[in-house]
Amino acid sequence: MSAPSHEHTLRVRYGETDQMGVVHHANYLLYVEESRTGLMAARGYSYAELERRGFALPVRKCELRFRSPARYEDDLVVRTEVRKLGAASVVFASEIRRPKDGAWIASVTVELACVRKGSAGLELCPLPEELRERLSS
Amino acid sequence: MSAPSHEHTLRVRYGETDQMGVVHHANYLLYVEESRTGLMAARGYSYAELERRGFALPVRKCELRFRSPARYEDDLVVRTEVRKLGAASVVFASEIRRPKDGAWIASVTVELACVRKGSAGLELCPLPEELRERLSS
Amino acid sequence: MSAPSHEHTLRVRYGETDQMGVVHHANYLLYVEESRTGLMAARGYSYAELERRGFALPVRKCELRFRSPARYEDDLVVRTEVRKLGAASVVFASEIRRPKDGAWIASVTVELACVRKGSAGLELCPLPEELRERLSS
Amino acid sequence: MSAPSHEHTLRVRYGETDQMGVVHHANYLLYVEESRTGLMAARGYSYAELERRGFALPVRKCELRFRSPARYEDDLVVRTEVRKLGAASVVFASEIRRPKDGAWIASVTVELACVRKGSAGLELCPLPEELRERLSS
Repeated sequence: MSAPSHEHTLRVRYGETDQMGVVHHANYLLYVEESRTGLMAARGYSYAELERRGFALPVRKCELRFRSPARYEDDLVVRTEVRKLGAASVVFASEIRRPKDGAWIASVTVELACVRKGSAGLELCPLPEELRERLSS
Repeated sequence: MSAPSHEHTLRVRYGETDQMGVVHHANYLLYVEESRTGLMAARGYSYAELERRGFALPVRKCELRFRSPARYEDDLVVRTEVRKLGAASVVFASEIRRPKDGAWIASVTVELACVRKGSAGLELCPLPEELRERLSS
Repeated sequence: MSAPSHEHTLRVRYGETDQMGVVHHANYLLYVEESRTGLMAARGYSYAELERRGFALPVRKCELRFRSPARYEDDLVVRTEVRKLGAASVVFASEIRRPKDGAWIASVTVELACVRKGSAGLELCPLPEELRERLSS
Repeated sequence: MSAPSHEHTLRVRYGETDQMGVVHHANYLLYVEESRTGLMAARGYSYAELERRGFALPVRKCELRFRSPARYEDDLVVRTEVRKLGAASVVFASEIRRPKDGAWIASVTVELACVRKGSAGLELCPLPEELRERLSS
């Protein structure tokens, strides 16, 4: 992929761990979600603004692969890139690593559909042209 | 208080624990929230319907007291009652217990304001009369 | 698959929704997790007890496919079955539906590894024989 | 209070909102928790290390007051200080504000007990002397 990826850093919160002593797996979806909107913001596009204009990007599909556990107070880096741009969808791929020891924590792929509030509820629609441009740059 | 209380039962989920091996304290706010809407439903009032009509009951204040830890797979009972009915607010009080051994887990008091979508965003407003009746019964 | 599946019912909590007005996608991992341990419990096996004996079943891989959004106060049924039993791993597949209107909400596949506390931290190990029997019955 | 306070900044995640379009109230407990351990870290004390030494600081009591809603992508500042140091407990007070418009979002007070793994499970114990010093400085 030629487009540059986006790096988001975060610190694991206590409440994100579970009794196994590691980050509960559901939280990785929040980490990569934050990284996705960070990528958009870095390219001058606000997801919040997109929603205010009547669009939304609901998640259609996710694949998560956990390689090594992350723990409380770990500093993690989420590297996200646009993997695929469809007519009415976009796929983001994220790699989560812990710089301290170089551990590879998880790989997450998320496919989002583009929808718009229509007369019959939410309807599938093409990605707004400006978003498409920002994501393909 | 004369009004009857409502009992809601739930089982602790794995993802609700933290690395201390107990339920993370923030989850109790979800437990009592579920119990509150259960109380309304038991009195024939749907909170979802209230929102569809343009009202909302945002949380204004909470007090939580933790007495004994709850653990994964514990069956808990949340007993909730209306503690106080104001003109534009309502206070719910909940006691959480673990029937298995009678342990008293937590006490939570939550004050909700009543708001309505007005021309200038959300505005404080009186509780809808029907809700007030159901809550005071 | 010949083994019977397990059905778990749940009601969507308010705090599980997001500003799109639907259940936030990360919560489905909690729903199917609860269904998995419900399946084990229904077959006479306690996951909590497994952990007390020094084992754990961390999540290695998840695939989620969202077909229709679920909303606050929806009653959902999670139907879970053992899809594959490996030497040191097990794959669960769950279908989430909303009985009220028959909507198919989501499909989730989760692969768990079996680990044990060893001298060098958590080590991959065969599934305990009793668990294997219960899961293959 | 003479002791300096600690400032922690965070950005609201999408999954932290609810269908009211604002941050779900339970998340503020995660925000102030992160700020508390940030305060300890800033004073050279690691909460993770405290737990590794067999201590823990479970939450005993919380009071939350919500003054103004926070929204997705808001940048918030959590200012936390030690309000009271007991023999076996500590009270932290946090104010959450949104610098962009100066809005006062919430005030949260959290009381933690100090416990230690003893022969009969977790037992109340005095705060470790080093932690007390760091918190009172």
